[in-house]
Amino acid sequence: MKTRAAVAFEAKKPLEIVELDLEGPKAGEVLVEIMATGICHTDAYTLDGFDSEGIFPSVLGHEGAGIVREVGAGVTSVKPGDHVIPLYTPECRQCKSCTSHKTNLCTAIRATQGKGVMPDGTTRFSYKGKPVYHYMGCSTFSNFTVLPEIAVAKIREDAPFDKACYIGCGVTTGVGAVINTAKVTPGSNVIVFGLGGIGLNVIQGARLAGADMIVGVDINDDKEDWGRKFGMTHFVNPKKVPGDIVPYLVELTGGGADYTFDCTGNTTVMRQALEACHRGWGESIVIGVAESGKEIATRPFQLVTGRVWKGTAFGGARGRTDVPKIVDWYMNGKIQIDPMITHVLKLEDINKGFDLMHEGKSIRSVVVF
Amino acid sequence: MKTRAAVAFEAKKPLEIVELDLEGPKAGEVLVEIMATGICHTDAYTLDGFDSEGIFPSVLGHEGAGIVREVGAGVTSVKPGDHVIPLYTPECRQCKSCTSHKTNLCTAIRATQGKGVMPDGTTRFSYKGKPVYHYMGCSTFSNFTVLPEIAVAKIREDAPFDKACYIGCGVTTGVGAVINTAKVTPGSNVIVFGLGGIGLNVIQGARLAGADMIVGVDINDDKEDWGRKFGMTHFVNPKKVPGDIVPYLVELTGGGADYTFDCTGNTTVMRQALEACHRGWGESIVIGVAESGKEIATRPFQLVTGRVWKGTAFGGARGRTDVPKIVDWYMNGKIQIDPMITHVLKLEDINKGFDLMHEGKSIRSVVVF
Repeated sequence: MKTRAAVAFEAKKPLEIVELDLEGPKAGEVLVEIMATGICHTDAYTLDGFDSEGIFPSVLGHEGAGIVREVGAGVTSVKPGDHVIPLYTPECRQCKSCTSHKTNLCTAIRATQGKGVMPDGTTRFSYKGKPVYHYMGCSTFSNFTVLPEIAVAKIREDAPFDKACYIGCGVTTGVGAVINTAKVTPGSNVIVFGLGGIGLNVIQGARLAGADMIVGVDINDDKEDWGRKFGMTHFVNPKKVPGDIVPYLVELTGGGADYTFDCTGNTTVMRQALEACHRGWGESIVIGVAESGKEIATRPFQLVTGRVWKGTAFGGARGRTDVPKIVDWYMNGKIQIDPMITHVLKLEDINKGFDLMHEGKSIRSVVVF
Repeated sequence: MKTRAAVAFEAKKPLEIVELDLEGPKAGEVLVEIMATGICHTDAYTLDGFDSEGIFPSVLGHEGAGIVREVGAGVTSVKPGDHVIPLYTPECRQCKSCTSHKTNLCTAIRATQGKGVMPDGTTRFSYKGKPVYHYMGCSTFSNFTVLPEIAVAKIREDAPFDKACYIGCGVTTGVGAVINTAKVTPGSNVIVFGLGGIGLNVIQGARLAGADMIVGVDINDDKEDWGRKFGMTHFVNPKKVPGDIVPYLVELTGGGADYTFDCTGNTTVMRQALEACHRGWGESIVIGVAESGKEIATRPFQLVTGRVWKGTAFGGARGRTDVPKIVDWYMNGKIQIDPMITHVLKLEDINKGFDLMHEGKSIRSVVVF
């Protein structure tokens, strides 16, 4: 079949809207019609050539929502007509990671996914007879895409695609980091560094978890209003704090935060986030993706005196199990998504979505097909 | 009163055995006759001048056992005749840390303890009319010492002092890191870096917790026999492994360890310990004290893919509550101490104990008064 798609033919070039050839689903795979997709910093990271494992030409996009249109042999968990969210972190429920019950980092298809191909080692996309690669196992910048059955989460049919798609990455990453990774408890003091799309979702996750103090830290004062919309109780602009931000935050939180979250990807901020934790028990969660080659550092004394350094990917969520729950939370009003979708674009305007992100003008742009 | 003591008059000089003046216990304090004391690397660290907060002249020693001889006003939890272990990490059960139930790092007397004085800001020791400072709130290199009531753990009277003293630091630090901080579960794979006094106690803690694989790593082949005595199942000498030790250990443990422990104080080894953890859930515990100014570093990717970096002080043990339990474990044969006490010395020979430690000839030297 044919599908319209925004294709990254090479790094550092705008996406091109073309018609691709798409092979149907093989055994264990499903064909999904993508109805809406968010544009995330990770797509830009790869498009801008920072991802040393980036592969071109490829169909980027990993934050989508759509409808199953066809299933391959042996597929039992979804059927045509089911509404689904593609999962860049699949959940096979069979591998060592899944059966450990200690991580969401399913390894079933990791090797092939990282190479831009389906589990059988081939691509389903092609253009003028040449292969076009998959991206993060999702490729939601195509109107139709093929995914392994274990990489789709079935969701309720009354959830609007143009909002639910955000649950495919940003919402789950932020809310999940609070709920699954940090396991923030009611009454906790929380600091969130970086109030972009992830940071705001960390804030609303902390509110959902019953945190007392939710401190947002950002060098852009415009983010204060955004943070407060989702539950932030205090705002700090490090540029306006005299001296080191760490003692300031330790003082503000009465000895340091119970939980801190880095949503900046900046390794200096990651260190500040650790060191702003309370002595004895504070935990810092790295969410942001750092530039390749950058390292985090601290004095080991920080750990010996009880601070804990952790990280999270996809918010520690097991996609097929947890994503439908987060969709329910959205539909039941426990979390908000609508105000975060600042821009809705057509596929033809997808490059504008990247521009808005780079300019800091959007929280989230969503492309509807 | 008078007391014999080994005094550190200045850094980098041998201890001198002299008779000190000792004031009796004030309100909330107890006078303890120290019957035996271990010699620990931390004493040497301070004596050798590496501790930027080291104070001289002082009475070092923090790993002792003895008998309460006198109590000050208001002391209710111990009485003369009680057998006790001094606690460099006290347990007041009243401060924010103690009542948090999330850390053992009681802060009740931290400020004064760090300055070498009792909670009222004065020393009990003096020599020729001039103050001699306390050390880690213990000063067990004196035959008699004064301690705050909250800094002694009452233990059973049938425990031999020359073994029980080791529970005052090394045993509790190693076993506690496994039980309290890592919370190692049965069937786990564990790697222990550095098979000195702490490392061997981590090994026996891991055995007690039911670990399957207990890998010991040391550059000294002589440590293999020592490790196996306490439950080590595999020994690795990094000098005999071709190439990087991390992938070797990841391979050996089938994907990385569930828990790793650094008992070396070397920040390069701390990084190896983190990176030898299993993707998704492995936790690395820093126990060793690093040289001042040294930092630990890693790629944030290590955390984002599920490894956790923690530390521990005094094995996460709440002294008055947990130390008596560890004494019971020793008396009931659940853990061993006797083979680790390789040398028993008189106070006059205490400097020999430091020499043995520096030469790597002892696991633990104990001074009996």
